[in-house]
Amino acid sequence: METLKRRIVTEGKVIGSNILKVDSFLNHQIDASLLDEIGSEFSSKFQNERITKILTVEASGIAVACMTARHLGVPVVFAKKTEAANQDAEVFQSEVYSFTRQKTYKIRVSRKYLSAGDRVLIVDDFLAAGRAVNGLIDIVEQAGASLAGVGIVIEKGFQQGGKDLRARGVRLESLAIVDAMIDGKIVFRT
Amino acid sequence: METLKRRIVTEGKVIGSNILKVDSFLNHQIDASLLDEIGSEFSSKFQNERITKILTVEASGIAVACMTARHLGVPVVFAKKTEAANQDAEVFQSEVYSFTRQKTYKIRVSRKYLSAGDRVLIVDDFLAAGRAVNGLIDIVEQAGASLAGVGIVIEKGFQQGGKDLRARGVRLESLAIVDAMIDGKIVFRT
Repeated sequence: METLKRRIVTEGKVIGSNILKVDSFLNHQIDASLLDEIGSEFSSKFQNERITKILTVEASGIAVACMTARHLGVPVVFAKKTEAANQDAEVFQSEVYSFTRQKTYKIRVSRKYLSAGDRVLIVDDFLAAGRAVNGLIDIVEQAGASLAGVGIVIEKGFQQGGKDLRARGVRLESLAIVDAMIDGKIVFRT
Repeated sequence: METLKRRIVTEGKVIGSNILKVDSFLNHQIDASLLDEIGSEFSSKFQNERITKILTVEASGIAVACMTARHLGVPVVFAKKTEAANQDAEVFQSEVYSFTRQKTYKIRVSRKYLSAGDRVLIVDDFLAAGRAVNGLIDIVEQAGASLAGVGIVIEKGFQQGGKDLRARGVRLESLAIVDAMIDGKIVFRT
């Protein structure tokens, strides 16, 4: 997606060889019109997949999911990361290790909002090692739902997550794949 | 907003006299088309306010903010609740006590994304005691930005938050105000 790649190049901040900050348009400040284009793009790619639900994890995934849901005309469910006092007892649950936060956290989805009849599109802002997406796939499987695919805004192609998902036969659509970050320069997969 | 009130009545779960769960359409599962109507409603109400930025706090506020931003054509900034390894050192910061989670947390916005020239609309899913909104107003003031108003999806009118904001002269637009929850029945302010 060319608009997205242009924004990554002009606004992304590369820190070392691993960290790419795009918080001017994706995960702190959000450019709603870019997100709407992203949602439209995912919608086109998965329009023949009979999606019934979009699954993501709080917080940054919510914007991507909502904008995609608008185009596909289906509800979003976002997995919650923390245990709240008024949370349902009946949940699907998985564990995710976050490299950014350097800790393991639980993600949970109420059993009410995912069922065997669902055909699920998972979306998220970033894919690196793939821990969050794998946790979400685990939840889809616990629900007995079927996985239509995974839509990622920015995949770090030099990490293992995308490779592993494709090897497992998961349909993965990444709108921008960064293959390397060398001396502050971003190299996209073409 | 009648569509919203109807959904609250048909799908809301009242627990005791204080907890209203609307996680089938607002804060766990999200009905994107209802959220789009909500965004359009906030956009109409604040369209003459020369809004330059929509401010909310993760996680449930993000969906409301993005759908409003789409209609107003301005960016969203969402305050972050936890300290991440790759967070900017330069932030506006405030403290918020959460009754739901029974703890105090920090909310932070990078100084890059809010400035004295901004005219800010704060939006959130719920307003009860008003702690989150007051934390966001604190951040707007720290930035020297001007506050255009506050847009809330569901206000608990029997708690102090809305009353206090109106008394301070803040323009508060709540799309549904619940004045009481008695024996599981929801009483709206008319």
